[in-house]
Amino acid sequence: MKISIAQTAQKLLQAQDILLIAHKSPDGDTLGSCFALYYALSSLGKRVRVECNNDFPQKYQYFLEGYTAPCFEPQFIVAVDVADEKLFGDALECYKNRVDLCIDHHRTNTHYARMYCIDETQAATAQLVYLILLKMRIPCTPLIADCLFTGITTDTGCFRYTNVTAQTHLTAARLIENGARAGMINRIMFEQKSKSRIAVERSVLETLSYDFDGRCAMVCISQNLLRQTGACEEELEGVSAIPRQIDGVWVGVTFNEREGGYKISLRTDSHIDAAAVCRVLGGGGHKAAAGCFITGDFQEAKQKMHAALEPFMQK
Amino acid sequence: MKISIAQTAQKLLQAQDILLIAHKSPDGDTLGSCFALYYALSSLGKRVRVECNNDFPQKYQYFLEGYTAPCFEPQFIVAVDVADEKLFGDALECYKNRVDLCIDHHRTNTHYARMYCIDETQAATAQLVYLILLKMRIPCTPLIADCLFTGITTDTGCFRYTNVTAQTHLTAARLIENGARAGMINRIMFEQKSKSRIAVERSVLETLSYDFDGRCAMVCISQNLLRQTGACEEELEGVSAIPRQIDGVWVGVTFNEREGGYKISLRTDSHIDAAAVCRVLGGGGHKAAAGCFITGDFQEAKQKMHAALEPFMQK
Repeated sequence: MKISIAQTAQKLLQAQDILLIAHKSPDGDTLGSCFALYYALSSLGKRVRVECNNDFPQKYQYFLEGYTAPCFEPQFIVAVDVADEKLFGDALECYKNRVDLCIDHHRTNTHYARMYCIDETQAATAQLVYLILLKMRIPCTPLIADCLFTGITTDTGCFRYTNVTAQTHLTAARLIENGARAGMINRIMFEQKSKSRIAVERSVLETLSYDFDGRCAMVCISQNLLRQTGACEEELEGVSAIPRQIDGVWVGVTFNEREGGYKISLRTDSHIDAAAVCRVLGGGGHKAAAGCFITGDFQEAKQKMHAALEPFMQK
Repeated sequence: MKISIAQTAQKLLQAQDILLIAHKSPDGDTLGSCFALYYALSSLGKRVRVECNNDFPQKYQYFLEGYTAPCFEPQFIVAVDVADEKLFGDALECYKNRVDLCIDHHRTNTHYARMYCIDETQAATAQLVYLILLKMRIPCTPLIADCLFTGITTDTGCFRYTNVTAQTHLTAARLIENGARAGMINRIMFEQKSKSRIAVERSVLETLSYDFDGRCAMVCISQNLLRQTGACEEELEGVSAIPRQIDGVWVGVTFNEREGGYKISLRTDSHIDAAAVCRVLGGGGHKAAAGCFITGDFQEAKQKMHAALEPFMQK
């Protein structure tokens, strides 16, 4: 059942012993939104816990500090920024089919929860949470402002993507007025790079090649590269965006080496439907970002990709 | 003489045959601010011209399109976002000591103009121009909004730097409401990279090395690299920020090969005073960004840099 922001606020005010679920491989929006709700609902004296399939990444320390998960049997389960129950991950499998409320902004949400408050026009779930907290009349403390600002800035690529509206900037202004440490957060999210991340970028750029007269750019992340640089999954975030950023490139292809083949990440501009290309290879996704799996070695994978792209690459 | 925003608006409303001067090697703030004023003042039927030492870069085409410099003898000269008359460049030398009004946000402004409207608390000169246009009661058209948004987003690194305040986001919200094409502008300014820029990044990362147990990161831009990649000056923008972005790095050093030696660009975090280090080598600058020139070949330059840094690099 779809419910409004006001109804969502009401449900949360009534709830006790609340479990907040973040999606697996958590990003700034799912964690920022969860912890904004955690601090807000805790301030009302409720018992609240945030759970996630993965450990919370170190870089979110500035709003995670001091959090210890309280122990209780959840009476009200809320999934936050989780488009599909599949994204709970194995560790949180037990909560499937038990979600009372889902707060999300993904167009692809599968409506798995008993109640859902979904607004696809919001750039981030954090922006929706901000509106819910306003309705609940819970003061936006500096810590809550940090959480929400983190969600908004990460899901908009620091206000860079086309999902940003005037409202996004208005919310950011309010959060800064409420004490969000915008400069520090943006530095942590967007500026700082680990030595192994830099090593990944260097190695990935060394694999850069062009096809279709420069309209297709390809990079490869081999297992060997990962071993040599010591990079973890988290440090690969955004690498698949690199080839698409190049002028005149319609399609950016990232080949991720896996057991028996390559996991492909495809990013396209408005010339090409990424999902349509990936469907040819048994995959799927969105218009501008899609994926598939190609078996075989690198040369074979490249050839299959080239063949799949060919009909789409005519000028 | 320092004048207020209201007085500045008044002066501009009274002025005729206005010349707007952008600084040399123009960026988004000087051009966006100039062209916002150009379109605003032209809409009042005034003759207005924008001049710059350099050609306007192609990437600003979306607000430059259709501009042709009208020919007239300027009666009122306004320097916009120009901290020092030195930044007029050789081609605009003739306007030195003749500037009626300077609109700027640089702390280092040398107060060379007869009247100046300077606000160092503004993240961009464009934000100041926005306030001036409000006072002039000139409607912010979509085109003017594009110009001003360009200034704000480029001078804040897309809302990333610590100069961003709640007011910056509020202004951005208003500009988007007025039709600024934020997504497109950010994509052009921050996402798109030319093939030669990508080649530069690749080659520069290949030269990356560390010193002082990883607390110093160094890259080199050789003449050879420039020849091979075909990159122009503009495409090197921001390269010197790369080494400083790495976790745990106190000092990022960029060696730019020149005739007879290396032009050094030093970026530091709060541990190190960049200007103090560069003064040892006969240069100067700011606390976080400074420069100097070292004669000799690359090995000699590296050694001299290492020696200069040594006393500053103790933990």
